[in-house]
Amino acid sequence: MEREALYRALSQVNENKMVLLVLDGLGGLPRQDGQTELEAAATPHLDQLALQSELGLTHAVGYGITPGSGPAHLALFGYDPLRYEIGRGILEALGVGVDVGPSDLAVRGNFASLQDGLIVDRRAGRIATEKNRQLVGFLNGRIKQIEDVAVRLYSGEEHRFVLVLSGPGLSDALSDADPEANNLPVKYAQPKNEAAAKAARVVNRFIDEFSTILKDCFPANACLLRGFARYPAIPSLAELFKFKAAAIASYPMYRGLAKLVGMEILPTGKTIAEQAVTLKANFQQYDFFFVHIKKPDSYGEDGNFDAKMTVISEFDRQLPAILSLNPAVLVVTGDHSTPALMGSHSWHPNPFLLHSPFVRGSSSKGKLKTSRRFKFGESLCAQGILGNFSAQEILPLMMAHARKFKKYGA
Amino acid sequence: MEREALYRALSQVNENKMVLLVLDGLGGLPRQDGQTELEAAATPHLDQLALQSELGLTHAVGYGITPGSGPAHLALFGYDPLRYEIGRGILEALGVGVDVGPSDLAVRGNFASLQDGLIVDRRAGRIATEKNRQLVGFLNGRIKQIEDVAVRLYSGEEHRFVLVLSGPGLSDALSDADPEANNLPVKYAQPKNEAAAKAARVVNRFIDEFSTILKDCFPANACLLRGFARYPAIPSLAELFKFKAAAIASYPMYRGLAKLVGMEILPTGKTIAEQAVTLKANFQQYDFFFVHIKKPDSYGEDGNFDAKMTVISEFDRQLPAILSLNPAVLVVTGDHSTPALMGSHSWHPNPFLLHSPFVRGSSSKGKLKTSRRFKFGESLCAQGILGNFSAQEILPLMMAHARKFKKYGA
Repeated sequence: MEREALYRALSQVNENKMVLLVLDGLGGLPRQDGQTELEAAATPHLDQLALQSELGLTHAVGYGITPGSGPAHLALFGYDPLRYEIGRGILEALGVGVDVGPSDLAVRGNFASLQDGLIVDRRAGRIATEKNRQLVGFLNGRIKQIEDVAVRLYSGEEHRFVLVLSGPGLSDALSDADPEANNLPVKYAQPKNEAAAKAARVVNRFIDEFSTILKDCFPANACLLRGFARYPAIPSLAELFKFKAAAIASYPMYRGLAKLVGMEILPTGKTIAEQAVTLKANFQQYDFFFVHIKKPDSYGEDGNFDAKMTVISEFDRQLPAILSLNPAVLVVTGDHSTPALMGSHSWHPNPFLLHSPFVRGSSSKGKLKTSRRFKFGESLCAQGILGNFSAQEILPLMMAHARKFKKYGA
Repeated sequence: MEREALYRALSQVNENKMVLLVLDGLGGLPRQDGQTELEAAATPHLDQLALQSELGLTHAVGYGITPGSGPAHLALFGYDPLRYEIGRGILEALGVGVDVGPSDLAVRGNFASLQDGLIVDRRAGRIATEKNRQLVGFLNGRIKQIEDVAVRLYSGEEHRFVLVLSGPGLSDALSDADPEANNLPVKYAQPKNEAAAKAARVVNRFIDEFSTILKDCFPANACLLRGFARYPAIPSLAELFKFKAAAIASYPMYRGLAKLVGMEILPTGKTIAEQAVTLKANFQQYDFFFVHIKKPDSYGEDGNFDAKMTVISEFDRQLPAILSLNPAVLVVTGDHSTPALMGSHSWHPNPFLLHSPFVRGSSSKGKLKTSRRFKFGESLCAQGILGNFSAQEILPLMMAHARKFKKYGA
């Protein structure tokens, strides 16, 4: 029996609440004094909670594989990130908050500069975002449909936009319509198979209409299109695990990823405190909550050790409010590591903590008495009772601790 | 996406150097005082290096599976040893240093004794190796070709030889030409399917010609052939990981295994010191070095605890010379365990150490200050941050630490 069939067979409904707190990019690397961002942060509540929790380190895709946000979150939600791939166009659409759905083809677009039949600048001189918004508004008023396909454009930053085509029979088996270097002719999308002929036709007519409409708008008088992607066919969390899930996330991409697996998106504020309030206000309405906290990743990407450390401490101060809701299962973890030392996502496994009434917490506790200090972090998790394991196991573990999984076999 | 496709997609070229130091049969079992061979050895440099490294224990095939050298090295090189099987004939050929290639069929042979149509001794009285060489020379002068197939014989020890057939359309789907007990009639190879008809015909004519040529050479007047094996179709390391790899190994089988995955074989001496010199001399010409040190396994097989311990210490004295080359990533591990206590390969996982600027080394360090003694070995690795993991993850981990893997997904 494969994993998803197992989940469908074992899942059962009860009243227990599960909370998955994801600190994006939580894991790090040690600075001179041997402490990571998490280890250096003041986290008295996490430290205390760790005494009554099971700890470990999780790998989103595999040892040595640095995941993007898409695959990392699929793994957190219990899916195999090598089985379900989220195309670049879809991810870009989710990132700008576009409400994509199963019949959509999403595409990453650039404004570009066309001169004498050549793309002379693939980024249109990085036009201002304000200019982008103005041009996208103009275009949306003029290209609304091609054949039976609805056309919508959405502004990104600078020269970037997202194109969403909605209609029957749109395959994403298209080559990129991008010359990939400056001073080359306009490139059209090529269908990779017969089923993609219609999509190629629509896309290429879009490219021509785009240039016609903006013919007097140099340097932004052409477009490049790439990362053609259909909405992925993923079974919902409700199908697999029979629960009602909600996401509390302030960044569009994570709301989009949550929606992709069938979560409801709860309106919330930008601070961790506001997210905690949203959790409390909705606590009785759902079985599972995904709470996404973006800042540790952002500061990690900036290479800012201290700011990442500080935002982790800020999270810790909100932890009592979350714990006071008394969820049956609470997990605190990351989606991937973002060491400030590297200024990028990394392959290092994620600190993981699971709290429930059914943990073998004492084992870590006994062990850790010998350490100088009982501090939640990578080192402590490395000695945790759960060891190194796949992030795909997190959701099954939560289901078990919430008593939502029946016994397998008799 | 399967693992190899993932590697192909993520690999990128840079200048960073990776060194994989394999101490064959490194892992062991404790003697009376509770120390294994590695733990009892004086390894001050490894102990120091372990402070700045990630540690763990690797399994070549799986928990409880004792690997031969072939599967164990395939796993070290990043391949699934259950997917790619190296046939016995090929392994035997590699072991005697035969340069087999993709169009070859390799076979393990015995000289045997034929009397009145019966094989009366399957090992021809274990004839002297010198006699073997003489007969093989004689045979090579007389059987050069059968149909369009080139025939070459190579001496092994005592009664053993290797037969290599080179030509088009040679399947290895043949039953062994071996009665498997004395005093049974000569047995010919049977084709297991139609495609193997040609190979069977050639092999069986070889068996007859062999006996005809040696008709006056009793007890060595016949042959048994088994382990028919084609050269396995394995994608090269260069295809999967886009790097230039070199092997520094003094034993033919390991040079052969390295060649199988596309490494270049560097001429080197028999001592660890000579291997270190070879590494230094070639350090700028390759991206990845596989350094194979045979002796710990040999002494383990002999059941010689002290000699295995001593050769590990000898390796440790060479470590500074290797570290002075400043590779981006250095791994020290074994292919499988060979406890002197057992006198054979075993299933016990291999001590593993990875050193790079991107390790969470402090985590072990903090922990290990509390230990009575900080000594690299199985016990220390069991507490390592990497936990127990598959040896197939070693190469991805090295690629990650060498920054040769791009991010997976966005």
